[in-house]
Amino acid sequence: MTLRHLLCILLCLAGLLTHAQTDYPPLFQQTLAGTQVQTDLAMEQAFLVPTPKDMAGGYTHEVHKQNWKTLADAAALYRLTGEERYAAFVRDGLLAYAEVYRDWPTHPTARSYATGKIFWQCLNDANWLVYVSGAYQDIYDWLDPAVRTKLNDELFRPMADFLSIENPQFFNRVHNHSTWGNAAVGMIGLVMDDDELVQRALYGIPTDELPADLRDDDSGKIMSETGRAGFLAQLDLSFSPDGYFTEGPYYLRYALSPFLLFGRALAEKRPDLDILAYRDGILGKAIDALLLQADPRGDFFPLNDSQKGMSLYAPEVVKAVDYGYYLYGQDPSLLSLAEVQGTVTLDTAGLAVATALAGGKARPFRPKSIAFTDGPEGDEGGVGILRGYGADSAATVLVMKYSAQGMGHGHFDKLSYSLYDDTGEVVQDYGAARWVNIDQKGGGRYLPENQSWAKQSVAHNTLVIDRTSHYDGDIRIGERYHPDLYAFVTAGDSLQLVSAVSEHAYPGRRLHRSQWLLTDPVLAHPLMIDLFRAQGDSAAVFELPTWYRGQLMATNLDYTTNDTLAPMGADHGYQHLFLEARGKADTTTATVQWFGQGRFYTQTMVTEAGDELLFVRPGANDPEFNLRRDPGFMLRREGPSSSTFAAVLESHGSYNPRVEVAGDPYGSITGLELLLDNADYSALRITHRLGKEWLLFLANSDPAADREHELTINGQSYQWRGVHHLITSAHASK
Amino acid sequence: MTLRHLLCILLCLAGLLTHAQTDYPPLFQQTLAGTQVQTDLAMEQAFLVPTPKDMAGGYTHEVHKQNWKTLADAAALYRLTGEERYAAFVRDGLLAYAEVYRDWPTHPTARSYATGKIFWQCLNDANWLVYVSGAYQDIYDWLDPAVRTKLNDELFRPMADFLSIENPQFFNRVHNHSTWGNAAVGMIGLVMDDDELVQRALYGIPTDELPADLRDDDSGKIMSETGRAGFLAQLDLSFSPDGYFTEGPYYLRYALSPFLLFGRALAEKRPDLDILAYRDGILGKAIDALLLQADPRGDFFPLNDSQKGMSLYAPEVVKAVDYGYYLYGQDPSLLSLAEVQGTVTLDTAGLAVATALAGGKARPFRPKSIAFTDGPEGDEGGVGILRGYGADSAATVLVMKYSAQGMGHGHFDKLSYSLYDDTGEVVQDYGAARWVNIDQKGGGRYLPENQSWAKQSVAHNTLVIDRTSHYDGDIRIGERYHPDLYAFVTAGDSLQLVSAVSEHAYPGRRLHRSQWLLTDPVLAHPLMIDLFRAQGDSAAVFELPTWYRGQLMATNLDYTTNDTLAPMGADHGYQHLFLEARGKADTTTATVQWFGQGRFYTQTMVTEAGDELLFVRPGANDPEFNLRRDPGFMLRREGPSSSTFAAVLESHGSYNPRVEVAGDPYGSITGLELLLDNADYSALRITHRLGKEWLLFLANSDPAADREHELTINGQSYQWRGVHHLITSAHASK
Repeated sequence: MTLRHLLCILLCLAGLLTHAQTDYPPLFQQTLAGTQVQTDLAMEQAFLVPTPKDMAGGYTHEVHKQNWKTLADAAALYRLTGEERYAAFVRDGLLAYAEVYRDWPTHPTARSYATGKIFWQCLNDANWLVYVSGAYQDIYDWLDPAVRTKLNDELFRPMADFLSIENPQFFNRVHNHSTWGNAAVGMIGLVMDDDELVQRALYGIPTDELPADLRDDDSGKIMSETGRAGFLAQLDLSFSPDGYFTEGPYYLRYALSPFLLFGRALAEKRPDLDILAYRDGILGKAIDALLLQADPRGDFFPLNDSQKGMSLYAPEVVKAVDYGYYLYGQDPSLLSLAEVQGTVTLDTAGLAVATALAGGKARPFRPKSIAFTDGPEGDEGGVGILRGYGADSAATVLVMKYSAQGMGHGHFDKLSYSLYDDTGEVVQDYGAARWVNIDQKGGGRYLPENQSWAKQSVAHNTLVIDRTSHYDGDIRIGERYHPDLYAFVTAGDSLQLVSAVSEHAYPGRRLHRSQWLLTDPVLAHPLMIDLFRAQGDSAAVFELPTWYRGQLMATNLDYTTNDTLAPMGADHGYQHLFLEARGKADTTTATVQWFGQGRFYTQTMVTEAGDELLFVRPGANDPEFNLRRDPGFMLRREGPSSSTFAAVLESHGSYNPRVEVAGDPYGSITGLELLLDNADYSALRITHRLGKEWLLFLANSDPAADREHELTINGQSYQWRGVHHLITSAHASK
Repeated sequence: MTLRHLLCILLCLAGLLTHAQTDYPPLFQQTLAGTQVQTDLAMEQAFLVPTPKDMAGGYTHEVHKQNWKTLADAAALYRLTGEERYAAFVRDGLLAYAEVYRDWPTHPTARSYATGKIFWQCLNDANWLVYVSGAYQDIYDWLDPAVRTKLNDELFRPMADFLSIENPQFFNRVHNHSTWGNAAVGMIGLVMDDDELVQRALYGIPTDELPADLRDDDSGKIMSETGRAGFLAQLDLSFSPDGYFTEGPYYLRYALSPFLLFGRALAEKRPDLDILAYRDGILGKAIDALLLQADPRGDFFPLNDSQKGMSLYAPEVVKAVDYGYYLYGQDPSLLSLAEVQGTVTLDTAGLAVATALAGGKARPFRPKSIAFTDGPEGDEGGVGILRGYGADSAATVLVMKYSAQGMGHGHFDKLSYSLYDDTGEVVQDYGAARWVNIDQKGGGRYLPENQSWAKQSVAHNTLVIDRTSHYDGDIRIGERYHPDLYAFVTAGDSLQLVSAVSEHAYPGRRLHRSQWLLTDPVLAHPLMIDLFRAQGDSAAVFELPTWYRGQLMATNLDYTTNDTLAPMGADHGYQHLFLEARGKADTTTATVQWFGQGRFYTQTMVTEAGDELLFVRPGANDPEFNLRRDPGFMLRREGPSSSTFAAVLESHGSYNPRVEVAGDPYGSITGLELLLDNADYSALRITHRLGKEWLLFLANSDPAADREHELTINGQSYQWRGVHHLITSAHASK
């Protein structure tokens, strides 16, 4: 930002910006100036079109990737400044590709289900074509007709055919890869006015033109199931009706670009389709869904296969924010995201955002709790997000996942949850075992541990029964089922509930998890309350992990550490776990305290005789050091056929090593009791150090909001209406 | 800063600041306003003086600690605003202490070698008295004489006696604890005009008045060795002539406060002592030494027993910066530190800093390379700091430690090094196993693992022979010896050298380590070059660990991971280590690549037949989860009696998960060869991917700058003058 600003000032002083450019609002002007500096620098270098050879992260991969960016930027500069040197640069670059493209064989690595020509996978070729189509559009009218014909015939049409009819297994799925393929083919078709390509992009290759042995790269859902393909099918089938993307926000962020770019192009060139309103404005809903799936620091929830650290403030999300603002309702809270992003798209959307920002229209981005449905029809479970705000306005965010499998990138993590606050992750989702675009780590592809660890149930904060992953770790089973939302209550805000049921994660077992965020003046941050009921009819071993982030401070139980560590199991992720310590819970509650990023956390769990706490850490069977050694603990209960787990998690206090004063290092919940737990009702009593007491009731079999309930516990009768009920009472301090 | 600024504006608007106050320069005014808001809030609460009971981090500890701060702040506000309500508050608070102090027994915890009355250790009582003496000074003239007499007789004189003649084992050492004691007794003596106390503070308790069985808390150096005690002895014996504090910067930061506070008071009230000029201005040199021992992010090097995260920007360091500026030469680069600190001392020093800042006098703080001597006479080794700046001005800092033992807080880490850059730690010093002031972790005291792990040689980046710590891990041996600086060359800046020799870490073995930072346009960041010669006359096992920060990316050797982990040894720190993997180096060099905080690192090591690389991690025999699971690798060589280790460490490239593009993920050093290595000379050849080659020569037996050397290698003759020599040649790219 600062650098860009400075560059802009320098450029203005040097008279390098036209008068019109300096009339742009500051953020647009800075973005333009920064792009100009970078592009001019790139244009001073020779434009290289090396013969493809390397995997992601390698030399030829990175050069071709940089090329699409430079071409797109140069074309945008031509559009905005009218300087022909930019148009000529783009033309020459494209001609250089045209010179060699048809002679290139498929990429020599041959490691993808759909090997590209420029890159190791068609996906990256499609990325290239999406962005370069935009560049081509910008200079199309300026080009000599003969050059246009040459490029159309020798580069773009062959490339579009390669990415579609020559690779139907890539093009004709309902999948984010295919969306890129559809958009690439469609966008270049729109530029070239090639209706056949546009039609192919919108509707896919007709089934009868497909080879019989069409194969996918994984066992995920493929085109043949629905019989549909193409961009409109992606719009219909990739998102739930409220915009949730079944692979999760990391992939949504990636997948959204072709949706938005092709969507905008269609909105301009094919108004007859009214694409922005398609499916009740699904593109706008998808943008909202993306922006609402980030933690208070802006990092996306790392659901399913997600590399951590991807953020609302990543360059790729600029388009989502700007198009969301410009095309869908001018929500002023999006402007504050744009402000932190510090850059805008170099088009009318970015100009609108920069203009509104300069006009002081930004409002704070303070997202609310929301439950997203999953599945094209919105009937395949979903993801519930509770957001609570503490006394100091710091946010606490709980994410419960009861979604469908999420195709090939899905994890076996039914009813798992993760927790975030303003310091970042508190209880983490492991995310993916992958280093995107880092050559040393498998060329950036998924690592073997992604399958063997990251996808397994035990890598998540959810119940594992008999050391077996949900759906037996089999995607074919996982794709047949999904949990269902039981209740989602955020009215009133001080007590918010998300509750879901899985009937199929384990055959013959019903899992019902309910989680609350309780906001109360006596608590510095919202209290997380967890009630996990597991019903079945055969004895089982239950293990409920908590993958906390931080350093263990203390527990209230005696445990024994192991000085020789061996893998805990042979499969379902347990082959990667070392058991560092175990202890018997000999009281009615077990507590574990840890220190995170400057804050303390205390988890209190209801325990039964025989319960054990296992302290675990991944690292076994990790021959390439691909796994993070992050700690976890599991509450283990052996024997019953049905069992219920209840816990609360407090966030409290602070510690800064520059000051070395521990504020509130201990939690304040002194009692936790499961007063009642049966098929109809559960009742929890939570006691605070200062005497305050909360009684929390949940109706286990009827979530209806208008249903009246009555319950007697220890001779005391309670009545309420709706799925849950809270009674707060303050006793004298004990 | 922002909050303070806002408060100040609000207070000004509300007319709560007098005209004079609003005339102060902004930073002083903001600090004053912030202090006023906090103090007024504190004064609205009841002033509690609870009967002492808790350890550090516990309730009574924290209340009494807050009290000294509130009293000092209120008194300063009286001094600066003249508002009597502040003076009255301080008076009443002191009277409340006077009411109970003499009746308090020593603290019930009885866990210190010198148990306090207000706190668990005399040290904290002395902290209290140092700060409260300042407060007492501020209101002394305002008090009724009768109140003065009461406080002098019933609170302060008894407290001063308790901290000195009743606890000589605390008061009469040369140690940072005693400095606090000396300052406390001396400062209250200056306020009360009690010459006996001042004399006791300056010169200690005469030896003939001491009990015969005086005992210390550890085996560190005590008073009896030198026969001297008191503040002047601390000034003479705590620092080397250039201001280095033998316990390291973490303790210097802590110890400096009483030096500076008592020093300033003496400068005002006892000008005859000319304390600021004492020992050639040792207080100013100590301030400089503190500020120069921090990494590019401002964190102090965690040498010896140091809790990580303590920083130039910690509140405690404000005084060092402001007094350093005001009392010693008005160095404008200190102003830029004050600016980041965002606060100043509420006295003439802070006012001078704030005034200079407001006058635009600040200059960048860009420290140079420096070698500090250790020991009161400066002849007990030291610490060498090399700072190099890369193409983008980012700093790389190498710290080699060849100091004396550092008393009870010293580690067995002779010739160890650590490396830092603008992202933080690259090759880490483990620091202390301790959580200062966190009750759950042993009440904030040192944890058992501090002795068994953090102090041991293997926890550091230095050579371990036969799995035994330096000096056999025995402080009594360690205190008898120290390594010596061999050479320190920073002239020219592009090649900087620190080199030191230890003759006593292992009996009969001479260790000689030389490390360079090489700055070259072909390298993005300075290259670290390491040459470690170990000479002895009996077969040995050499292990040289590198405690890197980050995630292992790749190596060039085949290694086998262990899926069952057992402790590597029984003592000297090896009992805490798990061996995760080992591999035979079967080439002439071994490389290990890792990814740190956004940057890649590649270490290339010269290897010999039979060399092994061990991948290790602490975590064994850690019953309370006190150790961090940070990774390390060791180059292991078994057999020879003498051996030399040569390595280079490159910093390169970048990766940001928001962008997912790996820039320069691979290092560029393709060759490393030890061409010659004997008692007189070593010669290293380092080859860069682009063909550049460096030949580096070191004279091993004569470091004189004017000595002429001549050497023939493979028929080629080389001549140079001085301890080392570099020949750079550029070959055609291979």
